Amino acid sequence: MSSEFGNTLRVGVFGESHGRAIGVTMQNLPAGEAIDLVALEAFLDRRKPGKNALSTARNEPDRPVFLAGLVEGKTTGSPLCAIIENRDARSRDYAELMDKPRPGHADYTAYLKWAGQADMRGGGHFSGRLTAPLCIAGGIAKQILARKNIFVGAHLSSVAGIADTAFPLHPTQSLFEELAAKEFPAIDDAQGCAMQEAILAASHAGDSVGGVIECAAIGFPAGLGSPMFDGLENRLSAAIFGIPAVKGLEFGAGFAASGMHGSENNDPFRIDEAGAVTTTTNHAGGILGGISTGQPIVLRVAMKPTPSIAKVQETVSLSKMENAELIVHGRHDPCVAHRAVPVVEAVTALVLLDFLLEESKL
Amino acid sequence: MSSEFGNTLRVGVFGESHGRAIGVTMQNLPAGEAIDLVALEAFLDRRKPGKNALSTARNEPDRPVFLAGLVEGKTTGSPLCAIIENRDARSRDYAELMDKPRPGHADYTAYLKWAGQADMRGGGHFSGRLTAPLCIAGGIAKQILARKNIFVGAHLSSVAGIADTAFPLHPTQSLFEELAAKEFPAIDDAQGCAMQEAILAASHAGDSVGGVIECAAIGFPAGLGSPMFDGLENRLSAAIFGIPAVKGLEFGAGFAASGMHGSENNDPFRIDEAGAVTTTTNHAGGILGGISTGQPIVLRVAMKPTPSIAKVQETVSLSKMENAELIVHGRHDPCVAHRAVPVVEAVTALVLLDFLLEESKL
Amino acid sequence: MSSEFGNTLRVGVFGESHGRAIGVTMQNLPAGEAIDLVALEAFLDRRKPGKNALSTARNEPDRPVFLAGLVEGKTTGSPLCAIIENRDARSRDYAELMDKPRPGHADYTAYLKWAGQADMRGGGHFSGRLTAPLCIAGGIAKQILARKNIFVGAHLSSVAGIADTAFPLHPTQSLFEELAAKEFPAIDDAQGCAMQEAILAASHAGDSVGGVIECAAIGFPAGLGSPMFDGLENRLSAAIFGIPAVKGLEFGAGFAASGMHGSENNDPFRIDEAGAVTTTTNHAGGILGGISTGQPIVLRVAMKPTPSIAKVQETVSLSKMENAELIVHGRHDPCVAHRAVPVVEAVTALVLLDFLLEESKL
Amino acid sequence: MSSEFGNTLRVGVFGESHGRAIGVTMQNLPAGEAIDLVALEAFLDRRKPGKNALSTARNEPDRPVFLAGLVEGKTTGSPLCAIIENRDARSRDYAELMDKPRPGHADYTAYLKWAGQADMRGGGHFSGRLTAPLCIAGGIAKQILARKNIFVGAHLSSVAGIADTAFPLHPTQSLFEELAAKEFPAIDDAQGCAMQEAILAASHAGDSVGGVIECAAIGFPAGLGSPMFDGLENRLSAAIFGIPAVKGLEFGAGFAASGMHGSENNDPFRIDEAGAVTTTTNHAGGILGGISTGQPIVLRVAMKPTPSIAKVQETVSLSKMENAELIVHGRHDPCVAHRAVPVVEAVTALVLLDFLLEESKL
Repeated sequence: MSSEFGNTLRVGVFGESHGRAIGVTMQNLPAGEAIDLVALEAFLDRRKPGKNALSTARNEPDRPVFLAGLVEGKTTGSPLCAIIENRDARSRDYAELMDKPRPGHADYTAYLKWAGQADMRGGGHFSGRLTAPLCIAGGIAKQILARKNIFVGAHLSSVAGIADTAFPLHPTQSLFEELAAKEFPAIDDAQGCAMQEAILAASHAGDSVGGVIECAAIGFPAGLGSPMFDGLENRLSAAIFGIPAVKGLEFGAGFAASGMHGSENNDPFRIDEAGAVTTTTNHAGGILGGISTGQPIVLRVAMKPTPSIAKVQETVSLSKMENAELIVHGRHDPCVAHRAVPVVEAVTALVLLDFLLEESKL
Repeated sequence: MSSEFGNTLRVGVFGESHGRAIGVTMQNLPAGEAIDLVALEAFLDRRKPGKNALSTARNEPDRPVFLAGLVEGKTTGSPLCAIIENRDARSRDYAELMDKPRPGHADYTAYLKWAGQADMRGGGHFSGRLTAPLCIAGGIAKQILARKNIFVGAHLSSVAGIADTAFPLHPTQSLFEELAAKEFPAIDDAQGCAMQEAILAASHAGDSVGGVIECAAIGFPAGLGSPMFDGLENRLSAAIFGIPAVKGLEFGAGFAASGMHGSENNDPFRIDEAGAVTTTTNHAGGILGGISTGQPIVLRVAMKPTPSIAKVQETVSLSKMENAELIVHGRHDPCVAHRAVPVVEAVTALVLLDFLLEESKL
Repeated sequence: MSSEFGNTLRVGVFGESHGRAIGVTMQNLPAGEAIDLVALEAFLDRRKPGKNALSTARNEPDRPVFLAGLVEGKTTGSPLCAIIENRDARSRDYAELMDKPRPGHADYTAYLKWAGQADMRGGGHFSGRLTAPLCIAGGIAKQILARKNIFVGAHLSSVAGIADTAFPLHPTQSLFEELAAKEFPAIDDAQGCAMQEAILAASHAGDSVGGVIECAAIGFPAGLGSPMFDGLENRLSAAIFGIPAVKGLEFGAGFAASGMHGSENNDPFRIDEAGAVTTTTNHAGGILGGISTGQPIVLRVAMKPTPSIAKVQETVSLSKMENAELIVHGRHDPCVAHRAVPVVEAVTALVLLDFLLEESKL
Repeated sequence: MSSEFGNTLRVGVFGESHGRAIGVTMQNLPAGEAIDLVALEAFLDRRKPGKNALSTARNEPDRPVFLAGLVEGKTTGSPLCAIIENRDARSRDYAELMDKPRPGHADYTAYLKWAGQADMRGGGHFSGRLTAPLCIAGGIAKQILARKNIFVGAHLSSVAGIADTAFPLHPTQSLFEELAAKEFPAIDDAQGCAMQEAILAASHAGDSVGGVIECAAIGFPAGLGSPMFDGLENRLSAAIFGIPAVKGLEFGAGFAASGMHGSENNDPFRIDEAGAVTTTTNHAGGILGGISTGQPIVLRVAMKPTPSIAKVQETVSLSKMENAELIVHGRHDPCVAHRAVPVVEAVTALVLLDFLLEESKL
């Protein structure tokens, strides 16, 4: 088990939800990169809970403290470590869960793996809270990529079956900025409103909903990646499945491609007005044979509904080995998909930066 | 770039479609495992082309030759290397493709990455042919897993939109064996026939179709894997996206979970008749928090339609940097999804064996 | 570049000498291991500077703060992170060194690698101070190993050419404890006194001396490790050369073996009184073919003299690209070898624990 | 256990001494590199046995066959695989050794690790014969490095205590070529003669001798590598300890530095006549803080005497668990150090190429 990913750029997270601090280390960041901390915090704010009724009431200031690797706002080249101290943790809410695992949650599997020794208060190391340090790392990666004219953006593609407009063939930096500035990350605000209503309805019913996040990266150079087991899709998927609650991932046309004919799905090559090779469609999601085509990299991430719900649920008592009922108290998000939008951007940016560092010497 | 995967069990493939040989190395196999070569070849035969009109006419005997790591039918504990010699390669079919990249294929991205130095005859190292050595490794893994009562099986979940019956909540070893013995790997033979017709229709139209493969593993112990970036989903996905033409992957309810409520998607825990913890549904696909629950591990893999089709396609001439047309000659599969069924099993088995070796000392 | 090592047990250090904090992360520690913090601090005290005239006057309390992975004195199984805050750093001493690299130090190579962006105050990430977090990790490893009756100890084998008695064929736990309790880690106190005099003499002369550290591990099971590139010697050496100032490493008879005949160097196998296989000598240092023999693992580490000396030295001005003279001000150890004794133990313990976790499931 | 090394350039060996073939895979070689096969075979001949009375009479043509990654004499960028078929293996010589482990050899530890399942005929995967495929990989690396004006050479620094002249401060390409052309790789031929006499004397006495190999690399760029655990010394040592019989390794002044004063050992920086930074001595062996200084990289490798000797030796019978005597029959080298000279060059070249590929984009 390792809470790290990346080849050249190694990113590792640590921390338990109710421990002293959570944090992230980054090995192999290039030196001398100026990091705009105000912009970084604005990025972190996009995943912050407690903004409104759509998410948990837990109040996390989530200000990163840089312990190493950043001096006077610039990376030093040696390992970076940033932490967020835990403050607003109410551990009493979680006592019962040690015996009665929450359905759909990792309580039970953590119990099996660590024989009850894991610190599972608040979800422990499995908590969605660990995505905060991931966003610190990803926010840094996004700033470095932006300097190379590579931009990563995402939106909620669907929630509870309500679909947003898909990204256009060529998403733009300004579309990404527009989405980042919105309260609710949908392209089509009417659909965004419908999604929010679905989330609130689930919340009022003591229930939760899932969603799909579409993420795109533009400006990523063609020719990076590799076939077989170390290409863009391999490494993006390995990292993205590290985001809690992700249960599916597709690139370009993805599952829809499986129902298409080759003549439909193949993206025709053309010479564009600037004399460069382009494709007139992007069913490949910018990746062929694990290598970037130069078209936008497009992926969609399926997130399951939050497992922690207020309804009575069937579970077992592990101490008595008998059936039991469970009502999960505490504060929980009726949906995590909208808060996970910047997390998907963060992880995507980190993986793309890793390829850049590995193959083209930033 | 690395054509390897695995943590403890490292599996690497090598070879180009029209080179001298293709092969696989396996590091860290346990010693003293008897390998039934007849059973292994029967497994390899399941992905073999040329059996009928559904696949390419290329005749590949594909008999593995073991160079190292296997003595008198038993693994020695030191690295295993098996190769398949290439014989029936008609390189003349591929000359034009060096200049005019096939849409949907990796010709163009390989050209960018290796500046034209890659050996792309027959798809080179990107060829689906590289899945043959992968099946040697996977077939070995399946035999070792079976001795631990762990079984991996798969079927074609859909082709060209025609859906097979899904795996039951508890797929059995005999269902897997039944599927493995079929000419066409569908649970519902009527649907299988319809799929085959769709493939033939595409073939006659000079076109191709994609498909979805559903794979399950039973008997895998609970409590293996880990949260964040090194769990079952991370490593399964990183490996499965290494199979050529895969564009999507989901575990359990997957994308469907994103449209469900938590109260629907959460799998209730219950004590079963044997006194063990079980769940009454398996939307989690046997994995919570990256760790196995003890329920069947279930995943679905989306494969795009074969990019090589007989129809005229739009492409560019890389030497002239102008638009061009292309007709791909040579032998091509109108569908690779049915041949990829054992490949998905192979890769799944290898990843699961890696976890077993890492965490529970076979 | 990565400041991590280990296969299953990944250990990473971060921090710059004069940054906010230095620290260590450990991935994959077993859960439920009680850590005796008093014993851990006693171990850390062995490398602490400022105890007497033999080492730098810098006062570092070096109390570790555990941010994650340790709850109520027990490991949780998720990544551990411990930090030490930096307080007593006098950065003004280092200004000149940015332009005039210290001979024998990494100032110049760091300048080349990071184009002057590295934070080199106090040696930055190259500082011997980074061995403090390494000792936190190693101290934890030693406690876990001790519970398995595996003990690691070390002493100063020589300083400035003055040699201590070598470890006996079978060093004991009590010998290790005796050495750990000494002010100066020599077996033969008379020789230890002579070494200290040599260090003080060098100090008075504004100079420094090097030394050799002999380290042994007892109780390590036979049969762990592997031939070629992932065995005991490979991984021990890769980690030990990570200790600043190490320039040589040998196992068992080491360099002396190169002058011996096979008939002398081969360790004869015998059945001991308990009926087990043993050897009557241990020129192999407990390792044959990269695998443990069950005899004590013995290694010796050569440390160069501290490069920071008070004498006038020849260097260059990087800004003017002309020859220059340098007098290094600030506080420096006239010898680091005696303080490195617990560091060698720490790194050895971490590597051995990694093998145990990988191969025999603690 | 893994028989691979390298970060970006992954090199793995496979094969057993008496199996079907031994071989090597290389992942991530740059594409389009022309490989001179005649020069490669000349390099392989330097480690070939059977040339004279100094080494085993086993006749190995050792012609590499390239299965993948090399087309028309050029690398393709996809994994390279080269094999050497085994022919002249007399397995009958090894039967007794399965029960009575040879002192100083890995028979016993292999027996422990693989419970007797390893194929140990001829030393199995532990055999020095595995250095032949390593030399294929290293010979390729040397050719690629030479094109960048980086040259690697080595000589026998001592045998049985008889010392050759050390490399000068600045070894030259022509010195390396001269050494490579010699029957016996000593700088001082008189000393070389004395060494050969010592080897022959040991051979006549049914005994063996060890030796030290000094290796240097010139032209390697300054500023490559990193501090802590992933620098030049870490990765060189991890790989070099993979060569069978290596028991010690030092860089620059190495163990001698431990007896020097800082004022002696520190290499003064100077501006050379070309206006570049240089040092007037090279006690650092071209490496400071794990990073190259631009001076020659210099290392010395201690090799123990060949454990297989003709004398009667004390061992045990593993089946009877009683003391026994052993006379090793078969063909054995009275010294492996002289044959290991190109092997040390090969491994050094591979590690240096790995750094170049990782950090400066060949």
